[in-house]
Amino acid sequence: MGEFELIRHYFAAAACARVGGDVVLGIGDDCALLTVPVGEQLVVSTDTLVAGVHFPEPSDPYLLGQRALAVSTSDLAGMGATPIGFTLALTIPSVDSGWLAEFARGLDAMAAGCAMSLIGGDTTRGPLSMTLTVFGRVPVGEALLRSGAQPGDLLCVGGALGDAAGALPIVLGERDADTVEAATLLGRYWTPQPQLALGQALRGKATAALDISDGLLADCTHIATASSVSLAIEQSRVPLSDSLLRFAGAEQALQCGLGGGDDYLLAFTLPADALSTMQSEGWPVHIIGHVEAGEGVRLVDADGNSLNIAHRGYNHFTS
Amino acid sequence: MGEFELIRHYFAAAACARVGGDVVLGIGDDCALLTVPVGEQLVVSTDTLVAGVHFPEPSDPYLLGQRALAVSTSDLAGMGATPIGFTLALTIPSVDSGWLAEFARGLDAMAAGCAMSLIGGDTTRGPLSMTLTVFGRVPVGEALLRSGAQPGDLLCVGGALGDAAGALPIVLGERDADTVEAATLLGRYWTPQPQLALGQALRGKATAALDISDGLLADCTHIATASSVSLAIEQSRVPLSDSLLRFAGAEQALQCGLGGGDDYLLAFTLPADALSTMQSEGWPVHIIGHVEAGEGVRLVDADGNSLNIAHRGYNHFTS
Repeated sequence: MGEFELIRHYFAAAACARVGGDVVLGIGDDCALLTVPVGEQLVVSTDTLVAGVHFPEPSDPYLLGQRALAVSTSDLAGMGATPIGFTLALTIPSVDSGWLAEFARGLDAMAAGCAMSLIGGDTTRGPLSMTLTVFGRVPVGEALLRSGAQPGDLLCVGGALGDAAGALPIVLGERDADTVEAATLLGRYWTPQPQLALGQALRGKATAALDISDGLLADCTHIATASSVSLAIEQSRVPLSDSLLRFAGAEQALQCGLGGGDDYLLAFTLPADALSTMQSEGWPVHIIGHVEAGEGVRLVDADGNSLNIAHRGYNHFTS
Repeated sequence: MGEFELIRHYFAAAACARVGGDVVLGIGDDCALLTVPVGEQLVVSTDTLVAGVHFPEPSDPYLLGQRALAVSTSDLAGMGATPIGFTLALTIPSVDSGWLAEFARGLDAMAAGCAMSLIGGDTTRGPLSMTLTVFGRVPVGEALLRSGAQPGDLLCVGGALGDAAGALPIVLGERDADTVEAATLLGRYWTPQPQLALGQALRGKATAALDISDGLLADCTHIATASSVSLAIEQSRVPLSDSLLRFAGAEQALQCGLGGGDDYLLAFTLPADALSTMQSEGWPVHIIGHVEAGEGVRLVDADGNSLNIAHRGYNHFTS
C-alpha cells in the first residue's frame, strides 16, 4: 500500500468520517451515497484554498483544517441549508504525518460544530491546496437565493463585519498577536463559524441571502445584480466589533467592514414583518440599509445621501 | 469585475452549464440545487488531477478537459449511476483565454457524451490543477459496490486493458505518435469513455464492480478486500488490443494490461446466470477469471496454477 493510499485510510478513520443519517455510504468505494429526504433538494458548493493565495504557507494545520471546512460550509448557510457532509480533495507536497494529524483534527473540530460528515475525497501529491465540496439539503423551493430582494426590504447582516480582514496584518506576520483584541481577530480569521442556524431560520422569510466571503460591498453587489435592485448601505450602521475598532482604529475598521472578505457571516434582505419575527425570536439581525429600485450598491449617510465608495471592494489575502 | 470573476462568467456560459432535469439551480448563487427522484440516492465522487503528476505540463487543454471529466465520471459508471452533473474547481497559474476556451471545449465534448451538466465550481490562482466532483443517481439499494463478490462468481472486464498505459511513452514524449496504433492508444489515454451504460446495465446483476483506474491487479485487490474473497485472474484471458500488442509487444502489453492504470473500464463480478443475461443482451463482457474463497488476487494459468505477480501493480504517470 502506497503512502497516499495510507492517507486515504487515515482520513477514513477520522471522527468526522461517519456513516449514518443522510450518509448511506462514505469513504471506501468508487463513490459515496447520500439520501435526500422526499420534499427536499440537494445543495452543493465547491471551494478551493491554495497555499500562498488563500492562506499563508506555512500555516497551523489545525487552524487550516477548521478554516477550510468553515469557508465551504458557510455557502450552505447562505442557502439556508441543513448540512450533510463534504468531500475533501487534498493536494500535499509530501507526506507529513504530524501535519496530517493536526489538519484532520481541525476538520474534525469544525465538522462536529457544523454537523458535517466527511464522505469521500482524493489525496494527491502536488503544491499544497485543498478543494472541499459541501452538501446540504433544503425543502423544495425554500433555498435562499440572491435573486429575490424587493424594493422596501431591509438589508441586514448576521454580525460584526471586518474582523477577519482586520486580522490579516497578524496572519501575514506584519503585526504581533500579543493583545486580547489581536487574538480575537485571529480567531475570526482562522475559525469563522458558519451561520447555519441563522440561515435555516431565514427560510421563508429572507427574500435574498448569501454569505459574505468577498466583502460586504462586493457581496451586496451580487444581490443587487441577481435581484435587479439597488442596495443602500448606511455607513454608520455597519456593525464593527470593539476588538476591531481598538486594534485597527475607526477608519481602518470601517474599511475592513465594507471591503474586507473572509467574514463568512450572512447578508440578507427581509420584508419588515419578517424582520420583526426574526428579532422577536432573538436572532442576530443587524439592519444596515434597505433595498431600492435601481441597480448597484450605494453607501449612504444617515440622511440617505450617497457617500464615495473608493477602494472599498474586494480585499483578498493576495490578488 | 476581476479576471477570475470573468472566468466564472465564462464557464457559466459554457454549453455544458445548463439547468434542467435534475439540475434546479446551476452556476451563479452560493450553491447549486439538485433534485434526486424519490426512490433514488445521490452518488458522489471527487478526483484531483495535478499538472506534472497526473498529466504532463504543458498538455493540450482540449484533451485535458475531456480527460478530467472522464476520469471522474468513470467513478459514476463503477457505481451503476445515472449521471447528473459536476462541479469544477480549477486552479490556474494565470489567465490564458485561449487555453481556457480549449479546456472548456474539451469539457463540453465529454459532458455531452456523458449527459453531464456543469453545475458550479471555483476558479483560483495557483499551480495548475483541477478537482472535479461528479454527481449521479441510482435507485435505492442498486448501487454497484465493491463488497458483494461471492465465491463462484465470474470476474469480468468491460474491454481491452492497458491501452492508456501503453500510450504513456508517447504522452511523455519518449516515443513518436506516427502510427495508427500510437494514435489509437493516445486516444484511449486522453479521451477514455466512461462505461456508464454498461454500469447501469449491471445493476441488479453484478455482485461487485468498480472502474479500473489504478490497474487491473490493484483494483481487483480492492474488490477482494472489500468482499473478503480471493480473485483468480487467468493471465491468458486478459483482453489486450491489437493496437497495444503491435505497439508494445506481447510482454509489455501484458504488463500494461495487468498493472497499467488509467483505462477507466469496468471490472465486475457476476453470477453465471447474470453473465448469460448480459451476454445475450450484447454487452461487452470479457471473462478473465473467477471468485474464490480466500483473500487477495492470484494470477493463474489456464490450469489454475498460480503465476508470479512481480512488479505488475500500480503504475501511475509518476509516483
